[in-house]
Amino acid sequence: MSELIGYEEIKASLDKIDVVSEIEQGFAAHSQGRAVIPPVGELVFEDPPGETHIKYGYIKGEEYYVIKIGCGFYENQKLGLSTRQGMMLVFEQKSGHPAFILDDQGLLTDVRTAAAGAVVAKYLAPKKVHRIGIIGAGCQGRMQAEYLRGIVDCDELIVWGLNREELDDYVDNMQHTGYHIATTLDAAEVAASCNFIVTATPSKTPLLKAGDIRRGTHISAFGSDTPPKNEVESAILGKADIVAVDSLEQSQLRGEIYHARKAGYITDDDIVELGDIVTGKARGRSSDDQLTVIDLTGVAVQDIQIAKAVCKVISSGQS
Amino acid sequence: MSELIGYEEIKASLDKIDVVSEIEQGFAAHSQGRAVIPPVGELVFEDPPGETHIKYGYIKGEEYYVIKIGCGFYENQKLGLSTRQGMMLVFEQKSGHPAFILDDQGLLTDVRTAAAGAVVAKYLAPKKVHRIGIIGAGCQGRMQAEYLRGIVDCDELIVWGLNREELDDYVDNMQHTGYHIATTLDAAEVAASCNFIVTATPSKTPLLKAGDIRRGTHISAFGSDTPPKNEVESAILGKADIVAVDSLEQSQLRGEIYHARKAGYITDDDIVELGDIVTGKARGRSSDDQLTVIDLTGVAVQDIQIAKAVCKVISSGQS
Repeated sequence: MSELIGYEEIKASLDKIDVVSEIEQGFAAHSQGRAVIPPVGELVFEDPPGETHIKYGYIKGEEYYVIKIGCGFYENQKLGLSTRQGMMLVFEQKSGHPAFILDDQGLLTDVRTAAAGAVVAKYLAPKKVHRIGIIGAGCQGRMQAEYLRGIVDCDELIVWGLNREELDDYVDNMQHTGYHIATTLDAAEVAASCNFIVTATPSKTPLLKAGDIRRGTHISAFGSDTPPKNEVESAILGKADIVAVDSLEQSQLRGEIYHARKAGYITDDDIVELGDIVTGKARGRSSDDQLTVIDLTGVAVQDIQIAKAVCKVISSGQS
Repeated sequence: MSELIGYEEIKASLDKIDVVSEIEQGFAAHSQGRAVIPPVGELVFEDPPGETHIKYGYIKGEEYYVIKIGCGFYENQKLGLSTRQGMMLVFEQKSGHPAFILDDQGLLTDVRTAAAGAVVAKYLAPKKVHRIGIIGAGCQGRMQAEYLRGIVDCDELIVWGLNREELDDYVDNMQHTGYHIATTLDAAEVAASCNFIVTATPSKTPLLKAGDIRRGTHISAFGSDTPPKNEVESAILGKADIVAVDSLEQSQLRGEIYHARKAGYITDDDIVELGDIVTGKARGRSSDDQLTVIDLTGVAVQDIQIAKAVCKVISSGQS
């Protein structure tokens, strides 16, 4: 019988994990071909609209394999329910037997996604960041900023949101971080004043325009994880010095790179994988003049890394 | 928080479910296009050898969607562990929220597979079955015979196994069924004496040969669920009057039909879907002279049907 681990225990275990380092090692394993990661499984619902992704795989020779279920049902707000949900299932590689069911309600996906933003910043942020720009005032917009705190040496932050209410909530919720937070309803204002920008929205029309972006800017695009989603004008990828991605394979089917390639702005030869930058096989940013863009759709290796780290903490607490 | 339901409670709930009828309705929904069933997800392990399948989907407009994880690790016997494992996850279609985790350890997969054999018998068995042949003395070889008990009016059964030991076990375990059970180590003996045969082995070389099969025989092939597996010589499908399948789409990639099509014995036009036979859109057996073959690789709609029936029983017990 597998063991069901609840939200609070999972949340508490995170304090004992160096998440950014775990995720960084995961990207390296992925780009080195040490991970077996089949294509993402997907269920789409029309009424009410929703989507469920299944990301799964394993790193060869390790103890566990992981199947992660992540759900996004955007009308749940009307029901007073969380729009995101999910769980991670951890099985033994040597027998196939289930070991742990992490009923994290999507928490670990949020954390491993935000931690990927921190890994990116280590390799692609300009040395001198004047102001951090966050496009999207939701959960990931908050967590990305939190995870950048220890990596990017900058206290100034501006956040773009859909309306005043969510921007006010953002500022309230982020008091503890120590950022000086400005807010805006105009994404061009973020582009004009920031040289490190994170996008984290489900937008289907670009919020960042090529004409607004300054040289020397880095953009981490996190929101676009299905084919229709598109936050960053494809022309920006066309003029970038570095176009990176978490998974070359996944970028064939979804994300900003999918759009930019379809529009002819870039080809596969222009794209490097984050894990190759981590291991030094590909170059990261080499000057503060470069325009760099990374597109992340979320890779199962992140789920594998964080799930097994949580299981390790929980197992050691039980022993 | 989702509710974890254990093996014993799941097993007890089956007494209150007409499983064959549920599975029959599922095949109908599938062939009528009312089910959304993405391609099967698959993880393959090399050392030790093992495979994990993820089957998932939903019937439009219903309460739940289901994700089923099924594992086969054939060297587990050496560890004293079950070779099969799995669980079914049941989520709400209207919100994406997880409702039940059915930690069935593969039981429901075994049951829904055996029940499919009974559905097949309703439409494709000869009117007069002289003797039932079971190729494979494992769990599915037993359960198939059990589920045929109420459907096929025949007490005579012969079972083929790999060795005397597993055949003796089979006979011991099947005393309660009331069958007169003969055993053999020669699959040709099954072909020579039976006009209703079920194959349920992981064999990679055909056990049933075209020259041995009598006219008027029905064959249900259950064992071949990955591309290398092959229990039935492809020439048998070439001379069959009806070649049926549980899922046309899945048969493109795996199973007996995949082999027979590759070898040129049949084309897609020769194949009908079980659900279309159930609804009357395609014809089932119309005479005891016909040779009929069905290839089943297992469809998520079976998992959906049995999981939601179990959840209904469990919910009603709680209310």
